[in-house]
Amino acid sequence: MDAKELLRCERSAIRLAIEAGAMMTAASGRNKEIAEKDSFADLVTETDKAVEKFLFNELKRLFPDFRFIGEETSSRVGLTADPTWIIDPIDGTMNFVHTFPCTCVSIGLTVNKVPVVGVIYSPFLDKLYTARKGSGAYCNGRPISVSKNCNSLSEALLLCEFGNQRDDEKKNAVFRNLEAVGWLVHGVRCMGSAALNLCSVADGSADAYWEFGLHVWDMAAGAVIVTEAGGVVMDTKGGPVDIMNRRILGACCDKIGHELSAALPIHLDLESD
Amino acid sequence: MDAKELLRCERSAIRLAIEAGAMMTAASGRNKEIAEKDSFADLVTETDKAVEKFLFNELKRLFPDFRFIGEETSSRVGLTADPTWIIDPIDGTMNFVHTFPCTCVSIGLTVNKVPVVGVIYSPFLDKLYTARKGSGAYCNGRPISVSKNCNSLSEALLLCEFGNQRDDEKKNAVFRNLEAVGWLVHGVRCMGSAALNLCSVADGSADAYWEFGLHVWDMAAGAVIVTEAGGVVMDTKGGPVDIMNRRILGACCDKIGHELSAALPIHLDLESD
Repeated sequence: MDAKELLRCERSAIRLAIEAGAMMTAASGRNKEIAEKDSFADLVTETDKAVEKFLFNELKRLFPDFRFIGEETSSRVGLTADPTWIIDPIDGTMNFVHTFPCTCVSIGLTVNKVPVVGVIYSPFLDKLYTARKGSGAYCNGRPISVSKNCNSLSEALLLCEFGNQRDDEKKNAVFRNLEAVGWLVHGVRCMGSAALNLCSVADGSADAYWEFGLHVWDMAAGAVIVTEAGGVVMDTKGGPVDIMNRRILGACCDKIGHELSAALPIHLDLESD
Repeated sequence: MDAKELLRCERSAIRLAIEAGAMMTAASGRNKEIAEKDSFADLVTETDKAVEKFLFNELKRLFPDFRFIGEETSSRVGLTADPTWIIDPIDGTMNFVHTFPCTCVSIGLTVNKVPVVGVIYSPFLDKLYTARKGSGAYCNGRPISVSKNCNSLSEALLLCEFGNQRDDEKKNAVFRNLEAVGWLVHGVRCMGSAALNLCSVADGSADAYWEFGLHVWDMAAGAVIVTEAGGVVMDTKGGPVDIMNRRILGACCDKIGHELSAALPIHLDLESD
C-alpha cells in the first residue's frame, strides 16, 4: 500500500472514530439494553452493535476490497495478508455500561498481517490517539512518546486487568501473575480497557501492560500506537507478538518488556482468534 | 457553624483547589524531585510540599482559628471537634510522578469531627468535585448522584487499590480480599487515588470502593462528596466510619455496602491517624 493510500486510511479511520464516539456519547445517558456473552461479566449493548454496523458499512463503502474483522460480528475469521480493518466498536463495554469513562472505539488496519494504522478514540476522556506506520503516534494531534526514565521494573507503573472471563484457569493466572509482579513495581492500575492500556504505555503515563485473553480487535490499533510512540509490543513470553494469539505485552522499552515477561510465572495458551 | 460561614468555607476551598491544580499542571512537564517515604512505592515530590505549604498558608490566613491536618506536615495530630481543614496536596502522588492522570488535590473540612465540606479537583481529568453538607454533590457544577441500578454485588463495578505499603500483612490482605470479591462482581478497577475512587462512587461511575491503609486526608473530602451524592460511607466491617481509622468502604447504597463488607474476609486493624 502506498503512502497516499495509507494516509487516506488513517484519515478515514479518524473521521469514523469521531462519529462512533458521538454515538457512544449520545447513548451514554440512556438506559442500555444489555445482553450477556460468555459470562455474566462479558456484556454487549445495543450501542456496541450499532457502532460496529456503522463502521462496517462505512468502511465497506470507502474500502470495498478490504477485509473486516469486528468484535460483534466476525470473530474467528482468520487474518490474511490482505488489508484488513480490525475494529472494536466499544472497548471497555463494562465501563460503558457503568459510565466509567475509560471506554473507547478502536480501529486498526493490518497489511500483510502487520498493524499499520491505529486510531483509538475515547469520547469521555476526550482523547484521540492516532498512529500510522512510520509517522509517529499522536494524542489529540500532539506527538506522544513512551516513558524514557523507567530503568527497571521496580520503577514501573504497570497496567493489567482482571478481565471478564470467569473460568478457574484464567482466574488463577491473573492472581498468580499479580502476586508475582504486583509488589515488585511502583504500582498497578486497572482501567478496564485494553486499547486505552496500550495508549497509556504509548503516551508514557504507564510503563508496561500485559494481558491474557484479549482478542485481535483489542490489540490491533493499540499495537501500532505503542510502537510508533517508541515502545515495544511482544508476546508475553518475550518473542514477537502474534495479535491473533490472545495475549500481549506492551512496554516503554525492550528491557522493561523482557523484565516483566520473565517475572510472569504463568503464560496462558488460549485458542487463537 | 452557620450556613453562610460554611458556604464561605466551600468557596474558599474551591478557589484554592483550582490554584493548587494549576501548580500541579505547571509542574507536570518538569522532571520531578522525588523522595521515598515509608517504602520505595510511597513517594513525595517537591510539588506535594509546595502545594501543601500554599494551602496551609492560605487557609491559615483566611481561617486563622481553624485547625489544619495535611499529609506532608502534620500526620498523627489527632482530630478534635474544632473546625479542621484536612488536606492532601496531591492524592495519587505515584500517578503524578508517572503522569498517569488520576491525581488530584483534596480539601476537606470537619466540624465536630464530621466532614462538612469536600472539594476534590483533578486538573488532568478536568474534574472538580464539590459538596457541602446538606446541599448535594457536584462535578464541574452539575449535580451528581450515586448509581441507582445496582441491585446486588454481582452487578457492581468495584474500586480498590494495591496500595503503596509493602509489608506482608498488607499484601496478604489485599490479595485475600481481592480473591474473595474480585470474581463476584462485574469488574474491578484500580485508579491509584483514594479521593477519586470516592468521587467515582459519588458520580455513579462505580458502585463501591474499599481500602485499608488510608489516612484521614485521603478520606475526609471524599466522604462528604459520597454522602451528599446519596451514597454511604462505612467502616469496612459495616459499622459507622471513623475517618481516623485507616480504612473506609464507600458504596452507592447501604445494601451494596453491607454485601461488600460481608464478602471481605480480612479487615486490617492499623494504628489510627
